[in-house]
Amino acid sequence: MSFLEQSFSVKFEYKIYFAKSLFDISNPTLANFFKESQTSVVRKIFFVLDQGVADAHPGLVSSIQAYFDQYQEIQLIQEIMVIPGGEASKNDITLFDRLVEAVDRFGIDRHSYIAAIGGGAVLDLVGYAAAVSHRGIKHIRIPTTVLSQNDSGIGVKNGINYKGKKNFLGTFSPPAAVFNDDQFLLTLADRDWRSGISEAVKVALIKDPAFFSWIEEHATQLVARDLDTMNYLIARCAALHLNHIASADPFEMGSARPLDFGHWSAHKLEQLSNFNVLHGEAVAMGIALDSAYSFMTGLLSEEKLLRILHVLLHLSFDISNPLIQISDPESPILHGLKEFQEHLGGKLTITLLTDLGTGKEVHEMDHQMLIQASHYVSDFTSKAAVLPL
Amino acid sequence: MSFLEQSFSVKFEYKIYFAKSLFDISNPTLANFFKESQTSVVRKIFFVLDQGVADAHPGLVSSIQAYFDQYQEIQLIQEIMVIPGGEASKNDITLFDRLVEAVDRFGIDRHSYIAAIGGGAVLDLVGYAAAVSHRGIKHIRIPTTVLSQNDSGIGVKNGINYKGKKNFLGTFSPPAAVFNDDQFLLTLADRDWRSGISEAVKVALIKDPAFFSWIEEHATQLVARDLDTMNYLIARCAALHLNHIASADPFEMGSARPLDFGHWSAHKLEQLSNFNVLHGEAVAMGIALDSAYSFMTGLLSEEKLLRILHVLLHLSFDISNPLIQISDPESPILHGLKEFQEHLGGKLTITLLTDLGTGKEVHEMDHQMLIQASHYVSDFTSKAAVLPL
Repeated sequence: MSFLEQSFSVKFEYKIYFAKSLFDISNPTLANFFKESQTSVVRKIFFVLDQGVADAHPGLVSSIQAYFDQYQEIQLIQEIMVIPGGEASKNDITLFDRLVEAVDRFGIDRHSYIAAIGGGAVLDLVGYAAAVSHRGIKHIRIPTTVLSQNDSGIGVKNGINYKGKKNFLGTFSPPAAVFNDDQFLLTLADRDWRSGISEAVKVALIKDPAFFSWIEEHATQLVARDLDTMNYLIARCAALHLNHIASADPFEMGSARPLDFGHWSAHKLEQLSNFNVLHGEAVAMGIALDSAYSFMTGLLSEEKLLRILHVLLHLSFDISNPLIQISDPESPILHGLKEFQEHLGGKLTITLLTDLGTGKEVHEMDHQMLIQASHYVSDFTSKAAVLPL
Repeated sequence: MSFLEQSFSVKFEYKIYFAKSLFDISNPTLANFFKESQTSVVRKIFFVLDQGVADAHPGLVSSIQAYFDQYQEIQLIQEIMVIPGGEASKNDITLFDRLVEAVDRFGIDRHSYIAAIGGGAVLDLVGYAAAVSHRGIKHIRIPTTVLSQNDSGIGVKNGINYKGKKNFLGTFSPPAAVFNDDQFLLTLADRDWRSGISEAVKVALIKDPAFFSWIEEHATQLVARDLDTMNYLIARCAALHLNHIASADPFEMGSARPLDFGHWSAHKLEQLSNFNVLHGEAVAMGIALDSAYSFMTGLLSEEKLLRILHVLLHLSFDISNPLIQISDPESPILHGLKEFQEHLGGKLTITLLTDLGTGKEVHEMDHQMLIQASHYVSDFTSKAAVLPL
């Protein structure tokens, strides 16, 4: 038996730009990006826009057209496609088909771009269509929610759902660039503004104790929608996510998934709520549960657990929502453990906490101790309701 | 304006094993591969089989089942899916849907494998389904034709067609491993045996003059279906392709495509013939045309051109097929230039020859000189028909 061996590395690089009013003609950020990457070929850009963003920003389509009239570095496809946002858009295969059909109709090639403006679901869907068209068209993400600006929109994953299975089809495909425009945050509903903060709490808890303290100190301003405070939170959270992706296993060839702290129950809870509970809200509940479990198993001190629960309540998260409560080994949320294990492929890997800022991987969770952890969170919430925070 | 910068490299490694009778219980090659990559998780393997291969090897399905009964390193999904082969399978989106549905039904996760046994089209289709399921299931390729064993099956591309556009949907996704079993070659039709040799001529002409001389010296044995000679040709051709992929631009982020020597006309010719002309046959015609063009433009000596045309005729290629003849600037094959340019994205890049073993990129082709090149090939073929080779 003989063999040949193939081995190579592929380098991926992209920037996350922080901007205000990206399509204001006085803002050259986007135009400069295309100027710097100028080549001799004719390049086109095709925009896809989240319906929710289009509704909140009625002048956006004409601003985009005016912007590219002014800056001629790239040829704008005049038709801007508006598609529904939210998780439902990832269940609708006809939206994927419409995107691929547009790539064909407008002659978008591998030197050209599809830009998506919207929440995480629209970015996931458009990113997937871009990744498989012509084996990969350049993709620009313009995330418009806190969650997508600090987490999903800046990473390397895309995907759509299949038969109700989240992200069953997708790829690991780094974007060409990400542009975080804080003006989109101003029109978010309060729930959307707040829910994305939980991913910052999560990454602080597993990576950065100083950032956790900063969140504690700024919880009031965050809830009061102070934009500068939110911009700092997003930038720090994005940097921690980017560092993690680059330093670990960008395309997740192994099993470890530390960034999924609190997520095994969150994924299940979103589904149990028919996606009425937002991803970020579910993650906050999952963080509370797994932090309490870390205390129950002796990994984390009670004092530190209490700081975590306090900050989550301070940020107005409903951490004792009935759907996440575990009263017995048949509680529906526990099915999330098995589904998470299947998603990872065979071996369960759960991140717990040993300190604020330090995660630890375990490979099983005890149902009785999960029940105790769930009770602890509920008791804490009941007491906090009658005491000052 | 501020920004964060993301930068990381991803390493890809896989082996191409050369084997005889892969599913013979006395052959541990495949079992050893799974033994070496053993982990603690339960892994499954799901086989997809080209109908043409199943017909030529009626015992194959039961051999696979018996093999994995014997070697228990991995759990065989007992249902083996047989799908039609050839280019038509890449046009049929329902085949892609059936594959994804099977991944779901059999619970194939990211630690499990889909293996495809067949010609290039089946490998492309199954490779694409594997690449996008769960953001990438491990994929094993078992190519059964000369062309797929020496070229398409050992590389990193997959894809399906869309609205008649070749490989419109696809990804760059290295396989987990490739197993070239020479026993599959024995049942190939003569045309399939011979047509894959043209990719070896191509890669020899742009990379390896000694290999070109070897092909000249062994053309008689190759046409006479000597298996050892073919095995050498496949191994050398595969090694040259692998080296090229690893040393250049594996995921084709730039525009250069030297391995596409002779291919601009070949792609168009396949389509003009309704795929009655095989890919390898079309490539042989494309090599003849672009070699003659290299002579017409003064890049290549006539003596070297004649050696190329001789070896192609010796290998029984129909290099003056009417479909590739260019009699005037309206000849249909010339549309292939524009389509190739669109496929690359804007800038035309064509590889020509300056010597046997040395390519050179140019960015335009002169229609009048292409007409002369086409006439030269036709005249040569007419003369060769009445003279000894």
